[in-house]
Amino acid sequence: MADPWQQCMDYAVTLARKAGEVVREALKEEISIMIKSSPADLVTVTDQKVEKMIISSIKEKYPSHSFIGEESVAAGEGCTLTDNPTWIIDPIDGTTNFVHRFPFVAVSIGFVVSKKIEFGVVYSCVEDKMYTGRRGKGAFCNGQKLQVSGQEDITKSLLVTEMGSNRDPEALKVILSNMERLLSIPIHGIRAVGTAAVNMCLVAAGGADAYYEMGIHCWDMAGAGIIITEAGGVLLDVSGGPFDLMSRRIIAASSQVIGERIAKELQIIPLQRDDATN
Amino acid sequence: MADPWQQCMDYAVTLARKAGEVVREALKEEISIMIKSSPADLVTVTDQKVEKMIISSIKEKYPSHSFIGEESVAAGEGCTLTDNPTWIIDPIDGTTNFVHRFPFVAVSIGFVVSKKIEFGVVYSCVEDKMYTGRRGKGAFCNGQKLQVSGQEDITKSLLVTEMGSNRDPEALKVILSNMERLLSIPIHGIRAVGTAAVNMCLVAAGGADAYYEMGIHCWDMAGAGIIITEAGGVLLDVSGGPFDLMSRRIIAASSQVIGERIAKELQIIPLQRDDATN
Repeated sequence: MADPWQQCMDYAVTLARKAGEVVREALKEEISIMIKSSPADLVTVTDQKVEKMIISSIKEKYPSHSFIGEESVAAGEGCTLTDNPTWIIDPIDGTTNFVHRFPFVAVSIGFVVSKKIEFGVVYSCVEDKMYTGRRGKGAFCNGQKLQVSGQEDITKSLLVTEMGSNRDPEALKVILSNMERLLSIPIHGIRAVGTAAVNMCLVAAGGADAYYEMGIHCWDMAGAGIIITEAGGVLLDVSGGPFDLMSRRIIAASSQVIGERIAKELQIIPLQRDDATN
Repeated sequence: MADPWQQCMDYAVTLARKAGEVVREALKEEISIMIKSSPADLVTVTDQKVEKMIISSIKEKYPSHSFIGEESVAAGEGCTLTDNPTWIIDPIDGTTNFVHRFPFVAVSIGFVVSKKIEFGVVYSCVEDKMYTGRRGKGAFCNGQKLQVSGQEDITKSLLVTEMGSNRDPEALKVILSNMERLLSIPIHGIRAVGTAAVNMCLVAAGGADAYYEMGIHCWDMAGAGIIITEAGGVLLDVSGGPFDLMSRRIIAASSQVIGERIAKELQIIPLQRDDATN
């Protein structure tokens, strides 16, 4: 049987590359910043422009499909995941990096059917790295097959996470004490390049052994989530239980063992789900 | 008058590129690890091989010059800075990254005469980025002139630092509480790519507004230090006072204002100087 979603995936790759060009061009111009939930949660006109471009292009081709986009949700649109084929879009993952021209900025597109991620496309556009993952068919970066490290020994691991944009003193304390507990195991180290999608792709490529974070959104995880699992990794909730795309929490690990070991150390931050009705 | 050290600098660029090739080749093979000061302070045969190659090449050409190399010091050689022309070498800055194939690994060469850095070469070899700085003549990356952001407003800044390889509980607490205090100002964020030299070059390129760290060594700072100042940035001690290459402490900032503002937040970790006599 032909792959029913392959055409959608090819289109996502084309759109991500086109969006990446827009982002790269925008990096050459003056960037003006707006603030969202906190002084550290930023958005620019490029985020909005790129999302509109991606969504309108897809809508034209697949009018019956659903959409969840970071900037559409910020503008008041719903964020509920149904069984309908749904495109989950982050036009610029790493907006703070984009604003500073810190060279890790990704366009992320995930495609979910019946609540299962079917494919993901993450285009790290300054590096010109196109990461893709299709359920059952492996994960690739610029055509090269990806494989997680498979590391199971936490004391030999390198982790990626972020300090995030939450500046609530209590949340910040938990974020840093989680890092402290992990570092004290000890582990080899923690890195943070400033985008969830690129952090996860680095795990998929075997450059780091796990990524975890609380407070991110479904559009940060949908694209790279399937890239991780197709590279041989696992997705878990920060509790160690099953991963939930709408929960705003993730451990993306190169092995189940290391994922569960990280979960044991993490104190959990209370968060409103992406699909909570206000 | 001809630049007396230009020939040395050209040679350093050639050697850094050659060393980078060795590092890139080594990344394709199995990497076996040895431990230095802590379970998170790693070294490999490639570090040692690359340092030997660089130092023996320079010695042949400049037999009267002095050397400080990370692995030579680890092997018991002295680490005292005299007025003699001195090459300060880190064969692999980011050894933990190297071990994990996390894609930021640099060869760093600094050249110091009468305790002043005359030039620096940092070759980020996976990215193939050659950063150079020559006193009075500017800083460049792959031939493109570098300029710091010039940011003076801490609340609009993106910082780079590292959690480091020190696993002493007291030191770790200070490292994380320094991050907490800075994030709470608030600032836009903190990134950590896992090498001091690349972190500093990212500041020189304007991608981040400042880098600070305690516990690093002269070989982590000598090459990138002059790249920062030639890109228009400043070097300070973490106290806000004058920078001291042998002190194991640094703030490398895009402006004096932001450097001093960071110094105000930093609690200082007691460290033995690089040139302390044991």
